[in-house]
Amino acid sequence: MRVDGVPTRTVWWEGGRVRMIEQRLLPHRFTVVDMPDHHATAAAIRDMVVRGAGAIGATGALGVAQAAQAAPDAGFHAFVAEAATLLRATRPTAQNLFAGIDAVLAAIEADGDDVSRARRDALAAAMAFCDDDAESCRRIGELGAERLAGIGAGLRVSTHCNAGWLAFVDWGSALAPVYALHRAGADPFVFVDETRPRQQGSQLTAWELAQEGVPHAVIADNATGHYLQRGAIDVVIVGSDRIAANGDVANKIGTYTSALAARAAGVPFYVAAPTTTIAAHTATGGDIPIEERDGDEVLHAWGWSDDGRFLRVRTAPVGAIARNPAFDVTPASLITGIITERGIVPPTREGIARVVRTAPKVP
Amino acid sequence: MRVDGVPTRTVWWEGGRVRMIEQRLLPHRFTVVDMPDHHATAAAIRDMVVRGAGAIGATGALGVAQAAQAAPDAGFHAFVAEAATLLRATRPTAQNLFAGIDAVLAAIEADGDDVSRARRDALAAAMAFCDDDAESCRRIGELGAERLAGIGAGLRVSTHCNAGWLAFVDWGSALAPVYALHRAGADPFVFVDETRPRQQGSQLTAWELAQEGVPHAVIADNATGHYLQRGAIDVVIVGSDRIAANGDVANKIGTYTSALAARAAGVPFYVAAPTTTIAAHTATGGDIPIEERDGDEVLHAWGWSDDGRFLRVRTAPVGAIARNPAFDVTPASLITGIITERGIVPPTREGIARVVRTAPKVP
Repeated sequence: MRVDGVPTRTVWWEGGRVRMIEQRLLPHRFTVVDMPDHHATAAAIRDMVVRGAGAIGATGALGVAQAAQAAPDAGFHAFVAEAATLLRATRPTAQNLFAGIDAVLAAIEADGDDVSRARRDALAAAMAFCDDDAESCRRIGELGAERLAGIGAGLRVSTHCNAGWLAFVDWGSALAPVYALHRAGADPFVFVDETRPRQQGSQLTAWELAQEGVPHAVIADNATGHYLQRGAIDVVIVGSDRIAANGDVANKIGTYTSALAARAAGVPFYVAAPTTTIAAHTATGGDIPIEERDGDEVLHAWGWSDDGRFLRVRTAPVGAIARNPAFDVTPASLITGIITERGIVPPTREGIARVVRTAPKVP
Repeated sequence: MRVDGVPTRTVWWEGGRVRMIEQRLLPHRFTVVDMPDHHATAAAIRDMVVRGAGAIGATGALGVAQAAQAAPDAGFHAFVAEAATLLRATRPTAQNLFAGIDAVLAAIEADGDDVSRARRDALAAAMAFCDDDAESCRRIGELGAERLAGIGAGLRVSTHCNAGWLAFVDWGSALAPVYALHRAGADPFVFVDETRPRQQGSQLTAWELAQEGVPHAVIADNATGHYLQRGAIDVVIVGSDRIAANGDVANKIGTYTSALAARAAGVPFYVAAPTTTIAAHTATGGDIPIEERDGDEVLHAWGWSDDGRFLRVRTAPVGAIARNPAFDVTPASLITGIITERGIVPPTREGIARVVRTAPKVP
């Protein structure tokens, strides 16, 4: 996608370095940072310089490739294995991170003791992993745009959190169809939920859309239901953190109430996600553990002060306690369809089985 | 209610002065401010030192009483009329403000040319208006607690925005039943929606509950649906800004999605409000105009920095546009009952007619 008109990815390889957008300073500052070795790359994942399933997976893959370049001939495999362990430990619940690391390790394993070939293949595998992520998202955009175009021109879209290109290598999931429509001249408009408590909507999605020139408005999460009720929104599209085998979808907290309001308004509710998001061994949404994050996120807000400092302000009383579930589960019954790179399917066991890459462990 | 253990009202008369809690500094600083004359009192309403329908009405009434004390014998009525016009203009859409002002003006009118009696009666009328507000809320608490006690002990309540005593003279509307239950030893727990964009939940409701010793947790507005879905909430109670003749309810933006999620979870959804909130001439919720406030509220958050300054931080990109509807409408069909000081009624034309004080202008 574009930043100040220049085509850019979220994370990429450049002369042995892993380069990435410093996402913690967005939308207030756009900076590209360099990770000279896999230690720095691991730290970038851990410290959330980069976030979002697809982008984390790609960064993990590139980190292993970096380690392979730096590993000495003697003890090559032990060096790489140690680096992989370090990278794996940065975000212990990020399914896609493991997939990225494992893809590069598999390429290295296949080369046995041919170390210089392993170095080359590791890099090729990491680049391929990044390209696959971008291509899946591009395809989601294509398929999604085709479906949304059927709803009508001047489409008014609601989205939650950031399922844009910053969460992947390029294009994004929920926003990919919007970008595809926009580039095709179909003039979509996006209602951007600010997405408390971490504000990925106002901080990342609004920035992305502005860079791409897509008209949009930021709204409080509280306002989505109202606009759906008043007929101001034609379709809701969100991403997903995990899709269960029965079509239930875990996504950023607040997704469930958007789905309820869409249903009440008779508005279609789509989930867009690459098939790597499908957890075939998770039978239903009830089996998805809901991460509870630090309550401080709810008791504060983060942003830039009028005098140009990035800081937090406390909105709640000192001593207040907060609860902070990071995700919720939208039942399959509220979902119109799941847009994947392998097709748009109904949120049913049969639909999911049609596109899933690995056979479910739980039948 | 209590502040640091001391019984306190939101606004009161003391030796010719109108005293009130400076609500703009809550929850970080508790300060009582003095309004020496009706000009200062009008400014306090306009600048939102005091907010909330009941509290604003009481402050308006006390302001007219102040003017009556200060008015010269010659030109008494002209002086008071001018003061009333000034007070009325502070918040041009606050129905309850006009009711407070008119109540005191009526008492003055009744005394004709007996100026010293008019001064005395003006003050008595203003005090009575304040006491009526407090008594209505106390009664809402009593009736509401009785109804909620039927749901069970250890009640887990969800509320939105601030419909507590800070919005009235005392007790509050939605929180009055919670306080009554708590004082009766019934051990309620409150999930407090932070209520973006102005954070009345985290800033006011959480503070009130802490002062009264009611256990609670602040949550992002996004989390209410999740907790309802997971069976963690037994009842939702909210206040109201306006109730239409058919039982549709306008309240702070986000109320509608709470009602949808309560319905989906099979959890009762109550609206608590004094009968002064009923707009008998408003036929349905569709006839209630929705105020759109400054988008800056959505693009920023306000609070206290770690170094003790009250300031705002910008969470959205510079140049971003926001939409900011202040209220939404919850259709009567999603409401279990409306708790008023004159009884708990179903959200129907017949139910509303049973408690309304003035006959509907639109039949």
